[in-house]
Amino acid sequence: MFMETPVQQESEPVVGVDVGGTKIAAGVVDARGKMLSSVQRSTDTRGAEQTLQAITDTIEAALSASGVEAEHIGGIGLGIPGKVDARRGIGLISANLGWRDVPVKDWLEARLGFPCTLENDVGVATLGEHIYGAAQGAQNVLYLSLGTGIAAGIIIQGQLYRGEHGLAGEIGHTAVRPGGRLCACGGQGCLEAQAAGPALARNAREALEAGRASRLREILTGGASLTTEQVFLAARQGDELALEIVSEAGYQIAFALYLLAMAYDPQLIVLGGGLALEGPLTTAIQAELARWTERSPLFREIYAPDRFRLTSLKRNAGILGAAALVKKRFIEDAQ
Amino acid sequence: MFMETPVQQESEPVVGVDVGGTKIAAGVVDARGKMLSSVQRSTDTRGAEQTLQAITDTIEAALSASGVEAEHIGGIGLGIPGKVDARRGIGLISANLGWRDVPVKDWLEARLGFPCTLENDVGVATLGEHIYGAAQGAQNVLYLSLGTGIAAGIIIQGQLYRGEHGLAGEIGHTAVRPGGRLCACGGQGCLEAQAAGPALARNAREALEAGRASRLREILTGGASLTTEQVFLAARQGDELALEIVSEAGYQIAFALYLLAMAYDPQLIVLGGGLALEGPLTTAIQAELARWTERSPLFREIYAPDRFRLTSLKRNAGILGAAALVKKRFIEDAQ
Repeated sequence: MFMETPVQQESEPVVGVDVGGTKIAAGVVDARGKMLSSVQRSTDTRGAEQTLQAITDTIEAALSASGVEAEHIGGIGLGIPGKVDARRGIGLISANLGWRDVPVKDWLEARLGFPCTLENDVGVATLGEHIYGAAQGAQNVLYLSLGTGIAAGIIIQGQLYRGEHGLAGEIGHTAVRPGGRLCACGGQGCLEAQAAGPALARNAREALEAGRASRLREILTGGASLTTEQVFLAARQGDELALEIVSEAGYQIAFALYLLAMAYDPQLIVLGGGLALEGPLTTAIQAELARWTERSPLFREIYAPDRFRLTSLKRNAGILGAAALVKKRFIEDAQ
Repeated sequence: MFMETPVQQESEPVVGVDVGGTKIAAGVVDARGKMLSSVQRSTDTRGAEQTLQAITDTIEAALSASGVEAEHIGGIGLGIPGKVDARRGIGLISANLGWRDVPVKDWLEARLGFPCTLENDVGVATLGEHIYGAAQGAQNVLYLSLGTGIAAGIIIQGQLYRGEHGLAGEIGHTAVRPGGRLCACGGQGCLEAQAAGPALARNAREALEAGRASRLREILTGGASLTTEQVFLAARQGDELALEIVSEAGYQIAFALYLLAMAYDPQLIVLGGGLALEGPLTTAIQAELARWTERSPLFREIYAPDRFRLTSLKRNAGILGAAALVKKRFIEDAQ
C-alpha cells in the first residue's frame, strides 16, 4: 500500500509537526524546504484530548510566527510515534503518547480547517530525506532510522511503501541473530535488542560488571546509571571497551542493511535518527558494508560506498519530514 | 523500477514462451489464462542466432496449432533464464543459453511482427501466479522460486518490482548463514548453497560418505550419482536421512521467507518452482514458518498460514507466466 495525501499546490507553504513523547515541534515550511518559523513546547500526555489541544496550540503558534496567512497554507503533515493508520488518519497505538485509536486527522481538521496527513515517525523521516534531504531525486530508497528503536522506511518509485499491515521494514524486530538476546517485543535476537541505543548502554554495563577495564567505570562507581551518550562519548575518546561495543553494534546494523539491500536492491541507503550522528557507529557500519561487498559478488552489484548517505536533515528531520507528507506527488495514482 | 509492456487489448489471446536451457515451450493463451495450444522443442544452443531461430519456429508452430489468426494476437511474452534487461528487451547474461547481450526483442519483432516483452524466468513466474495463479487479486506478493536456484519475485501494488539493478529478491545469494558453505557465486553461506536442489543431493552424498545409514546408499554403491529427485523419493518413503536433509532445507528456506516477509510485509507468500511440488519440503517450510510466528509477535501480525500458497500453475507456469507479461495493466503508469 502506498500513502495518500490530499491534493495541494506544490508551491504553497505547509505546516510540519513532529509529535514526540516529551515535546511537540511545529514549523511552517516553504516549497523548497526552508523553515519560515518553528515553535516547540512540551507534550501534554494527560490524555488524548489534551495532547491534541497541545498540538493545535503549537500549530497555531507556528502559523502566527511565520507571518503566512492561513489561506496560503497547503496543509498540515504530522509525524506520530507508534502505529498509525495513515489512510484513516488515526493514531492506533503509541506507548510514548499513551494513545489508542485517536482520530487525529478528524479532530485537527475540525479545529483548524486545513487538510491533515499523518504518518508514523519513521515514514515521515523517510519522506523527509526523499523530498528535502539526502535522498533527493532517488526513486528507490532504503532509509534506516537508528535511535532508541531501529526501523527501515522504504521509498519505491518515489512513494512510501508500507506493506500490508504498515510493517514493511520492521528490521528492528527481525531476528538477525537467531537465539540471541530477548527483546522487549517478545522476540529473540532482534536487531533492536542487539544494537539500538539502550542495548549499547546495557552491553557496556554488563561488560563492566564482568570486570572489563574502561573509563566508563567511574560513572557506575559514582552511582549514576550508564547512558548511550556516555558510551559514545567514551568511544570518541578512544576507550577500548566503548569502541568494541559500538563496533559490534555497527556490525549487526550493517548485516541488517545487507539483508534489506539484498531484498530491495535500492538506489540509495540513508542512515538517520539520533545514532546516525555518532561518527564511531556510522564509520563501523560503512566499514562492515564494505566488507560485505568483498564477501558477496551479488551485493557488490547492488551496493557501492557512493550509494550510502547520512541524514542531511538532522535535527530538523521531524518538522521537514512531516512537511514533506503534504506534497501532492506522493498521492497514490495507480487506482 | 517497474516493468513496461506494450499496450494491448486485455481480451486478445497472447503467446507465452518459456525459454530454457534444454527445451523451448510456447503456447497461445486466451484472456482467461486458458491454453489454446502448446508446442515444445529442444533448445538449439549452438549460438544466439540458432536459439532465436528455434524460438521463432516454436512460436510459429504454437500459433499455427491454435487456429488463432495472427491479427488477433495481442503480443508475445518470453521468460528467459539469467539476467535480462527487460526495458530494452535484451538477454544480458545466461549461462544456460550461453548468451551475452542478445537483442531478443528487436530480433523477434523484426521476424514475427508482434510486440515482444521479456523478463527473467523468476519475474515471469511471479507475474504468472499474480495474473492466472495462486496470487490472483493480491496487490503485494512475495513469490519464492525453488529449484536448481532460489530467488524471490516481488509484486508491489500489482506490478513487478525489480529494484535498481534487477536484483531485488536475490535471496538465493544472500548469506542466511554467515560463514556457511561456499556458493558458486563466490559468496559464503548463501541460501542456494544450503537449500537448493543440488545442495540437497550434495548433503545426502556427504552424509552417506560419513557413514550414515539410508536407503540412498544403494544408489551410490550402484555407481550412479545421487540426484535431488532421489533424495525426495527417499524422503516420501520415510527414509530418515532424506527426511532430515529435506527438513534442514525447509528450515533454511523458511528463515529466508521470514526475512523477506519482515522486509516486505506481503499480502501473500507463494511458493513455486520444481521443488514447490515436493510435499516433504513444503510441509517443512510451513511448519517452520508457523514456529516463527510463535517466536516473533511482529511476524505474527504479518504472517498467518492462510497467507501461504503453493503454485497453482505448476508445470504450465512457464508459458502462462510469459503470457501474463503481455497484459497491459502492468505497464508502468506513474511517469
